Amino acid sequence: MRSSVYSKRMSVAPFDHPLLSRLLSEPAAADVFSAGMELAGMLSFERALAEAEEDEGLLPQGAAASIAQALDSFVPDAAALAAATRRDGLPTVELIRQLRAHAGAALAAHLHLGATSQDMIDTSLTLRLARLVTLLEAQLAAVLAHLTRLGQRDGATPLIARTRMQRAIPIRVADKLVAWARPLLRQRERLAALKPRLLVVQFGGAAGTLDQLGAKGPAVRARLAARLGLGDPGDAWHSGRDNFIEFAGWLAATSGLLGKIGADITLMAQNEIAEITLSEGGGSSAMPHKANPVAAEILVTLARFTAALSGGMTQALVHENERSGAAWTLEWMLLPQIAVAAAASLARADELLAGASFNPAKAP
Amino acid sequence: MRSSVYSKRMSVAPFDHPLLSRLLSEPAAADVFSAGMELAGMLSFERALAEAEEDEGLLPQGAAASIAQALDSFVPDAAALAAATRRDGLPTVELIRQLRAHAGAALAAHLHLGATSQDMIDTSLTLRLARLVTLLEAQLAAVLAHLTRLGQRDGATPLIARTRMQRAIPIRVADKLVAWARPLLRQRERLAALKPRLLVVQFGGAAGTLDQLGAKGPAVRARLAARLGLGDPGDAWHSGRDNFIEFAGWLAATSGLLGKIGADITLMAQNEIAEITLSEGGGSSAMPHKANPVAAEILVTLARFTAALSGGMTQALVHENERSGAAWTLEWMLLPQIAVAAAASLARADELLAGASFNPAKAP
Amino acid sequence: MRSSVYSKRMSVAPFDHPLLSRLLSEPAAADVFSAGMELAGMLSFERALAEAEEDEGLLPQGAAASIAQALDSFVPDAAALAAATRRDGLPTVELIRQLRAHAGAALAAHLHLGATSQDMIDTSLTLRLARLVTLLEAQLAAVLAHLTRLGQRDGATPLIARTRMQRAIPIRVADKLVAWARPLLRQRERLAALKPRLLVVQFGGAAGTLDQLGAKGPAVRARLAARLGLGDPGDAWHSGRDNFIEFAGWLAATSGLLGKIGADITLMAQNEIAEITLSEGGGSSAMPHKANPVAAEILVTLARFTAALSGGMTQALVHENERSGAAWTLEWMLLPQIAVAAAASLARADELLAGASFNPAKAP
Amino acid sequence: MRSSVYSKRMSVAPFDHPLLSRLLSEPAAADVFSAGMELAGMLSFERALAEAEEDEGLLPQGAAASIAQALDSFVPDAAALAAATRRDGLPTVELIRQLRAHAGAALAAHLHLGATSQDMIDTSLTLRLARLVTLLEAQLAAVLAHLTRLGQRDGATPLIARTRMQRAIPIRVADKLVAWARPLLRQRERLAALKPRLLVVQFGGAAGTLDQLGAKGPAVRARLAARLGLGDPGDAWHSGRDNFIEFAGWLAATSGLLGKIGADITLMAQNEIAEITLSEGGGSSAMPHKANPVAAEILVTLARFTAALSGGMTQALVHENERSGAAWTLEWMLLPQIAVAAAASLARADELLAGASFNPAKAP
Repeated sequence: MRSSVYSKRMSVAPFDHPLLSRLLSEPAAADVFSAGMELAGMLSFERALAEAEEDEGLLPQGAAASIAQALDSFVPDAAALAAATRRDGLPTVELIRQLRAHAGAALAAHLHLGATSQDMIDTSLTLRLARLVTLLEAQLAAVLAHLTRLGQRDGATPLIARTRMQRAIPIRVADKLVAWARPLLRQRERLAALKPRLLVVQFGGAAGTLDQLGAKGPAVRARLAARLGLGDPGDAWHSGRDNFIEFAGWLAATSGLLGKIGADITLMAQNEIAEITLSEGGGSSAMPHKANPVAAEILVTLARFTAALSGGMTQALVHENERSGAAWTLEWMLLPQIAVAAAASLARADELLAGASFNPAKAP
Repeated sequence: MRSSVYSKRMSVAPFDHPLLSRLLSEPAAADVFSAGMELAGMLSFERALAEAEEDEGLLPQGAAASIAQALDSFVPDAAALAAATRRDGLPTVELIRQLRAHAGAALAAHLHLGATSQDMIDTSLTLRLARLVTLLEAQLAAVLAHLTRLGQRDGATPLIARTRMQRAIPIRVADKLVAWARPLLRQRERLAALKPRLLVVQFGGAAGTLDQLGAKGPAVRARLAARLGLGDPGDAWHSGRDNFIEFAGWLAATSGLLGKIGADITLMAQNEIAEITLSEGGGSSAMPHKANPVAAEILVTLARFTAALSGGMTQALVHENERSGAAWTLEWMLLPQIAVAAAASLARADELLAGASFNPAKAP
Repeated sequence: MRSSVYSKRMSVAPFDHPLLSRLLSEPAAADVFSAGMELAGMLSFERALAEAEEDEGLLPQGAAASIAQALDSFVPDAAALAAATRRDGLPTVELIRQLRAHAGAALAAHLHLGATSQDMIDTSLTLRLARLVTLLEAQLAAVLAHLTRLGQRDGATPLIARTRMQRAIPIRVADKLVAWARPLLRQRERLAALKPRLLVVQFGGAAGTLDQLGAKGPAVRARLAARLGLGDPGDAWHSGRDNFIEFAGWLAATSGLLGKIGADITLMAQNEIAEITLSEGGGSSAMPHKANPVAAEILVTLARFTAALSGGMTQALVHENERSGAAWTLEWMLLPQIAVAAAASLARADELLAGASFNPAKAP
Repeated sequence: MRSSVYSKRMSVAPFDHPLLSRLLSEPAAADVFSAGMELAGMLSFERALAEAEEDEGLLPQGAAASIAQALDSFVPDAAALAAATRRDGLPTVELIRQLRAHAGAALAAHLHLGATSQDMIDTSLTLRLARLVTLLEAQLAAVLAHLTRLGQRDGATPLIARTRMQRAIPIRVADKLVAWARPLLRQRERLAALKPRLLVVQFGGAAGTLDQLGAKGPAVRARLAARLGLGDPGDAWHSGRDNFIEFAGWLAATSGLLGKIGADITLMAQNEIAEITLSEGGGSSAMPHKANPVAAEILVTLARFTAALSGGMTQALVHENERSGAAWTLEWMLLPQIAVAAAASLARADELLAGASFNPAKAP
């Protein structure tokens, strides 16, 4: 093989793999976790922080505008950031150093005033999760719309209920669709309930106590949240990571419920059963005649993947002291993958249901 | 060793171990999962079902009272139930057979009318989870009360924040207690929100469609729910198990958050740091002078245990067709253990915090 | 229901459940983890230790025989042991106290000389795992014998290979049986290789260094191992728990491979496919005509259960310092369950294959 | 921020993240999982297959050389491959189509003769795992060499053993190093034992039976293995995935054991304890004076990550029928990440130990 487009590209995880990402990822969700978006979120935090602090009289008039200008023209030194991440465990110490150097001595002390790395990093994440939640809401609505549409079209088609993998009694397609849809409707309700808990600003300073801002800490936090379009949680949550675990649980459950749909479809699509027809089946290198229910299988794969990773996320709740490098970094390794896998589940389910039609159950 | 009390007792899991259960279980929660309570819940289902069906005119007047009488005097044939469970994968087919034989031919057809095994088993579980939730609410309140009390007494004591396992800046005990309490307050809010989803009746008949009750199905389900003090979910959820996964996630998160408190206490109780004094330390067979922070360590253990099992629970969402023996049974293996471990976490945290007092941080 | 045999019995985990244990446990394996066996193993350790120390001249002539006599007549105070376990995190501090009191002042100092709790507990476990491994070897041989027998009888029967849940090309029953057997043959090879690593004595004293035995430590350890029929690992392994993780991985993989057989059988047993006939199918309370492939489903359940728990076991490798109460106790919560579930998998597979016969694949 | 190098780059997983990969990945291991290497492995399979088949008289003389030439000059159509992966669940159907078109009509039938997608993909993986194992062996040797060197230099330094997070009795640095090294020595032994099982060719054709090669199948497989430098397993293992699970378990255990070293180091490096000095500490954006034990924390992170993912890998053993798209794809999502995380653990441990020196334990 001549040296190809693939040669330089790492692809340890499927989400960043030039081939598998088409199958196992969802670009709009993956985009939320690009390093570019991550840094942009951190800079948004710094801009809004300066504005909030100027509003509270902690910065001189005009400082925030100057900082905003500096942030706009900033170009990170990528090599130095990467090296520093290796040393510090996070990019922010070096990023603040670069930002201060870029902004100049007069502004340096006004940048990042009273904040810490975790404030930037966690807030950058919740800012981006806000975008992700909007995407997930739309994806979930699309899947539910397919289920409604299929019910209207094929709902009366007779099927056989199967319990413990054996034929039981007659049902209709509508019954199956309702069983698929109900839990997703509850997921929609849960997402609406967790949103205000999840989409909040992180702002606590070195130890979560906003020690450098005196009595003005809470007011700055409130203004910062408002400027970023996030909620004000009333406190820092450096070591209290339950909102992310709740969200990871939601993501894994959504993927799991779609995995149930996928499992059902692989079973209904068996040649001998043929209760579902799919618009697009995958091919085989050895058997050109086959039409494999690939997307349905992938729903099962993604469900098992997110379930395994969600167990790992829960381990990250054991977060020692005021900030655990070990537990926090574990979140970074898991949450983006769970999120993108769940979004991929929704995308695959959408495509699969778009091309599905049901056939009456045959006699055994 | 002379043959002892232990000799006949299985103790594969710690919850049923005559020694370890004192450390790793919580009797009031474990009681919810006794086989006796499980069967009692199934009989409550049958009684309430007969009453609901009589109310809807599906049974002759008086049938429900006769069934209730029969249920009261019923003594299960335990050996036959166990053998049948091995064959059928659940005890209910044989249980219904025994109940019908006990009730007599005249009542037999009125018992379990339109219902299926899963209706009995799932409803028995949610009935018992209602008791468990009440216990958890009280336990959580007790832990939160300790945190409030400790804040009032020791809140002003100076501590050192520690981030990434290094001394950072001064904080007070109050800061640490707030960081421990806030996520638990959110857990209380989450529990209140999930309760109405979780504590619902299961009633669907053979395939979830109440096929034998005709137009009266929904009315019977509503009456059944009301008689049992459960909610009416508006449908059967034989294959849609998201409510249990949500609850398992809540349990694991609660245990995880208490594991964070436990980890903090083991670190604060180190001899060189001594920022916390515990009323009761565990001994050592080789070193009588030691006072080990056993309960704090156990909080970490339970957190990691529930995290691992909650990942497994999520795998059970992939529930094929109208009822999966494989996925359903997996829930039975995991949910009770997650629940009792979480209750044990709350019990250990209660005891630990009851005897804790804080000491000012020393210079390094 | 009249108060029944179930009323007092806890049954949080399926292994100790009066009904479910018939389905999900295996008595001979569960017996290894009874508290009675556990204590008996600890007393065996103390007896052999005294003998080894007398052999090395660390105890006066005759002391070991007197200790052996005392151990034979010992009856533990169960209530005190349970209470102490709650306080100390393990039963051994109190157990040694009771043993010394029972043996009398003259022998007290000769009992447990140079040992620590972990030596007793870990060695009691490896002694019992030796019994378990013998059981597993026999179970594995029985399953493999069924596969051989089925191959001889039904091997030529034509089947259809199915890939990605679609019919592919013709194969024979023999091909399927070989695909089932080969990984189990490798498991047999792996078990033989891990056995000498796993079945070793634990002996290190307070901190793993046999500090109280001076130069005689290694010789005592070697004699102790020999007397117990265990290997001498050449060191203590208080904090190095890789052998248990290797074994847990083996158990989960065995259960997983049997889960694959179970999944295949549930698929082959579908009414429309009927490539396998099972001697014994489970019944349904709503549909008397059904014959559910219960044991095959349970193989899938057990596979998913052991997989989830094995991930948790691996978390226990992060074992801080010279002994971690948190990580060690986590092993106690998981390893027995993984072991008994794997033994139950082998038992269910044995029964299932004993009654299975294959049918030629039908045209689609 | 001006549009930066980060803007186009996905970075869902840390291994492909421009900043975090420096902390959480290991390039030499990640390289094994690049798409370029993956395709190169598939082409190596096709070349060696043609050679083996020509040797066995299944291809005309000279065909293999012509195929090799065609493979050398082949440039994949990346867009078509990606689109086909989405449809087929794997890139190979389209890759074979492209290869045959590139090779020309005369060679087309000689390419991929008797093989299937899984043969190409699994063999490409084991070829690359051979490289990975060589890397891991070297990394493990380097870590062990550090432990030996530290023992020689600092072994006599007095420390305090700590059990259950409390000071126990005096030990020496040598004792701690031995406790760290012994399990890694056993891991070396295990890796040597699993290597011949893992590094084998996959060759089975459409259903694992080499149906198109008649009696020559086994001879072709043996020659193919020899040409690729892999073992001949004596059979296809399309659905028997125990070797990968064994390897994943080994990787997770290695990472877990290094996580134990990391946990110990974070505890020893606490300001009040200071039993270890690290050459390089991470900084803080809020507290310039701090020196955080970042690499030690990351060892804990990676251990918990690999443990969680290894539980998911074990789920993939439930591999239905002759090939499961769902279970197989799950391996693709997990194994590369577990492998690279384990290699990163070894790399971080190497760096950490290279700069570590021990200090005598202080009085409490």
